Amino acid sequence: MPAPLELADIAADLLARLRARAPRVHCITNSVAQAYTANVLLAAGAVPSMTIAPGEIGAFVAGADALLVNLGTFDQERKSAIEAALAAARDKNLPWLLDPVFIERSPPRAQFARDLVGRAPAVVRLNAAEFASLAGFASLAGEDAEGDAALRYAKTHGTIVALTGAVDRVSDGERRMRIANGDPLMGLVTAMGCAGSALVAAALSVEADAFLATVAALAAFGVAGELAAQGARGPGSFASAIIDALYNLSRADLRARMRVS
Amino acid sequence: MPAPLELADIAADLLARLRARAPRVHCITNSVAQAYTANVLLAAGAVPSMTIAPGEIGAFVAGADALLVNLGTFDQERKSAIEAALAAARDKNLPWLLDPVFIERSPPRAQFARDLVGRAPAVVRLNAAEFASLAGFASLAGEDAEGDAALRYAKTHGTIVALTGAVDRVSDGERRMRIANGDPLMGLVTAMGCAGSALVAAALSVEADAFLATVAALAAFGVAGELAAQGARGPGSFASAIIDALYNLSRADLRARMRVS
Amino acid sequence: MPAPLELADIAADLLARLRARAPRVHCITNSVAQAYTANVLLAAGAVPSMTIAPGEIGAFVAGADALLVNLGTFDQERKSAIEAALAAARDKNLPWLLDPVFIERSPPRAQFARDLVGRAPAVVRLNAAEFASLAGFASLAGEDAEGDAALRYAKTHGTIVALTGAVDRVSDGERRMRIANGDPLMGLVTAMGCAGSALVAAALSVEADAFLATVAALAAFGVAGELAAQGARGPGSFASAIIDALYNLSRADLRARMRVS
Repeated sequence: MPAPLELADIAADLLARLRARAPRVHCITNSVAQAYTANVLLAAGAVPSMTIAPGEIGAFVAGADALLVNLGTFDQERKSAIEAALAAARDKNLPWLLDPVFIERSPPRAQFARDLVGRAPAVVRLNAAEFASLAGFASLAGEDAEGDAALRYAKTHGTIVALTGAVDRVSDGERRMRIANGDPLMGLVTAMGCAGSALVAAALSVEADAFLATVAALAAFGVAGELAAQGARGPGSFASAIIDALYNLSRADLRARMRVS
Repeated sequence: MPAPLELADIAADLLARLRARAPRVHCITNSVAQAYTANVLLAAGAVPSMTIAPGEIGAFVAGADALLVNLGTFDQERKSAIEAALAAARDKNLPWLLDPVFIERSPPRAQFARDLVGRAPAVVRLNAAEFASLAGFASLAGEDAEGDAALRYAKTHGTIVALTGAVDRVSDGERRMRIANGDPLMGLVTAMGCAGSALVAAALSVEADAFLATVAALAAFGVAGELAAQGARGPGSFASAIIDALYNLSRADLRARMRVS
Repeated sequence: MPAPLELADIAADLLARLRARAPRVHCITNSVAQAYTANVLLAAGAVPSMTIAPGEIGAFVAGADALLVNLGTFDQERKSAIEAALAAARDKNLPWLLDPVFIERSPPRAQFARDLVGRAPAVVRLNAAEFASLAGFASLAGEDAEGDAALRYAKTHGTIVALTGAVDRVSDGERRMRIANGDPLMGLVTAMGCAGSALVAAALSVEADAFLATVAALAAFGVAGELAAQGARGPGSFASAIIDALYNLSRADLRARMRVS
């Protein structure tokens, strides 16, 4: 397992590759999150596309470098789009990330998410309530239990679990890491979690070790949030400032601030 | 009728309850308005959800504390979503608010809005052109006529009318109030009115007197607008600043600035 | 052909007319771009509407002063909306602008765009990759070739081509101009190009010479971008700042900064 300073360099290298290569990330996401997600990707150096139209999504995904599947709206149109996108992603061997937004509020959405876990996502990014719903837990007692459960779920389903909250836990079923970066204002801007998922998806396209890519992207996003919070007067200015911070994020920032263990 | 200082305290208490209770507000709204509406709700302490998918909207509304129905896009999908949402709201006795956006431009949208007024919205929030279309007036001559017409309409239809503009008029058919807060920049940010409606819907979930909830929420939003305008360089910075202002809005701000009579 | 200073005055006059007349611009655009496009139009003085619902789009377009058709999402719903909107625009003799977003990624979208060019758009606004796809070029070698190709395409199809990039080229088949305004940050905010197209559509409604309207609107948007970039810390703050800059844009700014030849 890399030491913290090594991890900061891994994250810095990953950001440098995003900025240099400008990977395309196709995003199936809800209309609330689309613009903010696109702006976060652009600030990080990636190029977003967002169509879900059945006649063209296959071509967009086939030309992309990674795929984000966010369940923030769950209707027949998006279900068909997801099918077409996953088929194209499999043909091209593209990494994809599942973000099962709000599945704890809707049993059919939760069932669909469970089916999608069987379709080999590289990463599942979700919060504690969504994870409990996905895994069928009544609830999780504390952070340690969450970390254990994430590891077990990852191992059983052959994916990476990125369980985000005040502290993020990431596991690929063997390795596990805890990320203590971020700021509470991140929870007061709509689509912040969705945008973080998109950033992880972008990271998967430039780093073959999907576990390190996930840890690095989440930690970098958390550091950007901390820097943005310094000058923000509330969630409105913070929403812009984190995009600026991500755009300007340096190796020195990551070395000074990443708290990953 | 409460005195102005009492009203400022009612508004401050209402904001405190939103921040403490984090009520869920389900919003059926147009895609232009979704993200900004969500961010305004989050800044005020509420938790937005936005799906309109037929298979899950009932569950989302059933788990919510208030419902916003915005007609900013009027298609078959949203019409069905509104039906399902109103059924769930009636079952749970949830307060709901109708925002009949742009009905003066589309006769079928106006007819649908008239039908919805018969479905017992707690509040109808709209501007003068929309009100004229809803009520079938040719036009309204001046602010006094507007206030009288709002009172009559509210009485006849058993709802609260919140007629917003340079000055807002609120009536429940018996009581009436005039709110002179706000800033012209509020009219230059898309979805500002929709977001104000969402804030009123949130207020309905924490204040049983829907008339006072409406007045307090609109006045607080107007005060936030005034504070935001002080440092804004135009509608772009203003759009962020009003979210910051709402997030930071204090009892002292409300006492110093609310102009309600 | 007007001299540069005359062009700055034409642009300033055009902005003054937008602010005075508040033309309505109906926008068929993708959900990623809707809110930002609306805010750019509002900042310039125009009034946006965005519905694509089949039952009402005809009425909205009939009441508008210009129409934007953006192909950023290409599905059956938007295709039907475009048909209804173009019928209403033809009846009312409204100017309309075609923005064939990302057609190089999707053959059916490109074919649809080619069909739409036959429906007499006043302007086609697009980038080099989209232009190559539209016109069926393999690629374009350099800026001069782009300018020549734009002129030929404009002449052949009886429209104005506005080919945007680091430098914008505009031609109506006879006249041609080169606009060297703008800032690289404009490429890092989603929907910036879509919003620029909407601004051109608005300009068409207040200036009968569509070629000058296009040049003036693109140059003004570029100058706003330059002014915004001066204080921006990244694409997040820039996205707000360009809206402020457009709102405050003065004749002096345009005279000092417009680089059109």
